[in-house]
Amino acid sequence: MTENTPRASGTHPVPAEASTRLDSYVDRYAARTQGMTASEIRALFSVASRPEVVSLAGGMPNITGLPLDVVGSAISDLIAHDGATALQYGSGQGMPALREQICGVMRLEGIDAHPDDVVVTVGSQQAVDLVTRIFCDPGDVVICEAPSYVGALGVFKAYECDVVHAAMDADGLVPEALEQAIVATKASGRTIKFLYTIPNFHNPAGVTLSAERRPQILDICRRHDILVLEDNPYGLLGFDAEPVRALRADEAEGVIYLGSFSKTFAPGFRVGWALAPHAVREKLVLAQESATLCPPQFSQMAISAYLSRHDWQGQVKQFQEMYRARRDAMVQALDDLMPAACQWNVPSGGFYVWLTLPPGIDAKAMLPRAVTARVAYVPGTAFFADGFGSSSMRLSFCYPTPERIREGVRRLAGVLEQEMELRETFGALPGSLEAPRSGYDAPSSDLT
Amino acid sequence: MTENTPRASGTHPVPAEASTRLDSYVDRYAARTQGMTASEIRALFSVASRPEVVSLAGGMPNITGLPLDVVGSAISDLIAHDGATALQYGSGQGMPALREQICGVMRLEGIDAHPDDVVVTVGSQQAVDLVTRIFCDPGDVVICEAPSYVGALGVFKAYECDVVHAAMDADGLVPEALEQAIVATKASGRTIKFLYTIPNFHNPAGVTLSAERRPQILDICRRHDILVLEDNPYGLLGFDAEPVRALRADEAEGVIYLGSFSKTFAPGFRVGWALAPHAVREKLVLAQESATLCPPQFSQMAISAYLSRHDWQGQVKQFQEMYRARRDAMVQALDDLMPAACQWNVPSGGFYVWLTLPPGIDAKAMLPRAVTARVAYVPGTAFFADGFGSSSMRLSFCYPTPERIREGVRRLAGVLEQEMELRETFGALPGSLEAPRSGYDAPSSDLT
Repeated sequence: MTENTPRASGTHPVPAEASTRLDSYVDRYAARTQGMTASEIRALFSVASRPEVVSLAGGMPNITGLPLDVVGSAISDLIAHDGATALQYGSGQGMPALREQICGVMRLEGIDAHPDDVVVTVGSQQAVDLVTRIFCDPGDVVICEAPSYVGALGVFKAYECDVVHAAMDADGLVPEALEQAIVATKASGRTIKFLYTIPNFHNPAGVTLSAERRPQILDICRRHDILVLEDNPYGLLGFDAEPVRALRADEAEGVIYLGSFSKTFAPGFRVGWALAPHAVREKLVLAQESATLCPPQFSQMAISAYLSRHDWQGQVKQFQEMYRARRDAMVQALDDLMPAACQWNVPSGGFYVWLTLPPGIDAKAMLPRAVTARVAYVPGTAFFADGFGSSSMRLSFCYPTPERIREGVRRLAGVLEQEMELRETFGALPGSLEAPRSGYDAPSSDLT
Repeated sequence: MTENTPRASGTHPVPAEASTRLDSYVDRYAARTQGMTASEIRALFSVASRPEVVSLAGGMPNITGLPLDVVGSAISDLIAHDGATALQYGSGQGMPALREQICGVMRLEGIDAHPDDVVVTVGSQQAVDLVTRIFCDPGDVVICEAPSYVGALGVFKAYECDVVHAAMDADGLVPEALEQAIVATKASGRTIKFLYTIPNFHNPAGVTLSAERRPQILDICRRHDILVLEDNPYGLLGFDAEPVRALRADEAEGVIYLGSFSKTFAPGFRVGWALAPHAVREKLVLAQESATLCPPQFSQMAISAYLSRHDWQGQVKQFQEMYRARRDAMVQALDDLMPAACQWNVPSGGFYVWLTLPPGIDAKAMLPRAVTARVAYVPGTAFFADGFGSSSMRLSFCYPTPERIREGVRRLAGVLEQEMELRETFGALPGSLEAPRSGYDAPSSDLT
């Protein structure tokens, strides 16, 4: 099979591994497991990780700038002086000293919180999992932006929730769209458990909720009695100004705030957190104890030592500059090289540009051809629960160098021009008529 | 309120924190969350952690013998040479090199496994969580030994499973009791998803499944088509002989095996694993990615470095000797000091002795008085899903020194003698008539 052979059933060059094996347990899994299938694009990403491919797909932070000597000596001291504690079980809620430091981090975004209301989690991914675990029964609705973070959508599906999307524009979530989604969902008799939102430097859309809209969104949720789950891994990675004020800064009782050290320090420790109203926090701790007994004590103490011994905010400034240069490289390359019919935004922080293709071009169908041309991206459909997004893609500028980013965009532009030519000659290409995919894309670190 | 005032409703001196606060979210939680309440004995344990109390309650390994210099230099080298990898996201399944080493560890118990069938988890607690997540719908049955590990019972309740207990004796799970539990459960029209068993140095019962019974248990499960979840955190911590052959060594397709580095090395990294049939392994990886994206890369590389640079099996031998001396101290003290009407076993490995009190004495009711006398234990009811176990308790010998263990048993014997005298004088004491407690005890590291 070549990528140019039209096939009625779509263009997935590598069969999913699962489908080729016999599973004698197939009748015994829980209902929630039936929809768990490996992403169709995962096999492509294993090809995309080859060094000759420019990956604009992954969301891995670029941590080459970290002061490994500082980290190393902090951890050596930790083991020498506090080894017996660092290597032991800890509290299910997380280390008190780290929870205090986390409150200091959140203060930069205007949040005034008590360490007792913080729960440390195994990355903020686990925070999404635990919040969903305590709130959502099968069939409950979570309102998400359109598009939304693939890893959160995976959690919501794993708990058999229904996702209702609400539109965004250049200023982030559209208040009217949110209100409409709430009203329509309630009118259909379904129960909304929370709004999941990424207000800053959105993954994957790259946009930031404007200051004007923030009180409007909070007001809508208050009026309709909807809890807000504010996911903010990129909040400190803005390129232009001071950190944006968090939604949680203006609403304590109706917001659960999620933070992470994965982008401001390092993901390898898997330390994130949830800040929740007190009663919810108690449930989260019980859920955490059931899930893992306790988050890794060693990781927490390592991060705590790094925060207290190093100018971590100075390091974050360096990250901001590095990511800004890469954002600039990507936007410049898109300006210079992409066909005029494409549209994209210029993010003011974070890792991602959201690019929309000319009408009739399907980003998922095009992916195998792009990988063949040695460039990778994530098709937009990954970020919708309902099969939409086929004409869009997420481009990450976080990991490759500016030169590689430009080369990647050049290759992508070449593939796209070919695609547009073919389309002009032969009409719609295979894949573009494909039905929206059902089933559950597990997140992976490729898609973070 | 003093601990000597009879009260009709039981004797819980410290009110659970949750019950004193208003929870405005109380109507919004998922069904699974309704039963999540903090253990009634948790407040007592916060008292029990004071240094003047001898805690025979906790299951924390004693890691003071670990070579911190070796661990420290392994980790320093790791950061210096491989820092960018150790601090980055990793694979959802876990590091290939560590999975190979894990296969080497399991080979000591007769298991011949492929690294591709291993999934690294955040402690083996998370392995229990993920296996339950992929297999169990609400109302499904898990068969557990009576008593069973409190942390696993908590997971099964969190997934709204029903637990059916099957009796153990001095040779471990009784085959006839298992068969009877299976037949009766099937006859009642319910679906059994798996047998959860701890064959070696059982937590909390201290017993080990005999060699004769192992093929019988496997045969029963094969005939009834019941998956076995073999939880084996203590397998290498036997006091007398070579490691016992695992159930998984003789049955690959019908057993999911769980292992952990928490007891043979250190719990602070939170690294455990599941070895599963291939199709199940694929589901576990998807579930892991949804739960945490990936287990901590740093923890995995630290353990991998420790295993390859240190004589870790020599270290395990030292642990065995240390725990054997503590087991001996506890058993000797029980022989010397406890009233004749008590019964206990002599474990051949692991951390725990299971002690049964004279008729009419309630271990949970007695706990506040024991803590007042500066000794703590875990009442037997924690290890049953159905309220049984009130006349038993778990005594841990893993953490305190032999001298402290003897002192703890001396205090416990004193409390028990007082209790027996009171009972002789006044009849049944408050608490002993208490109805079996319902609701869900979250596990905590106190109870590991």
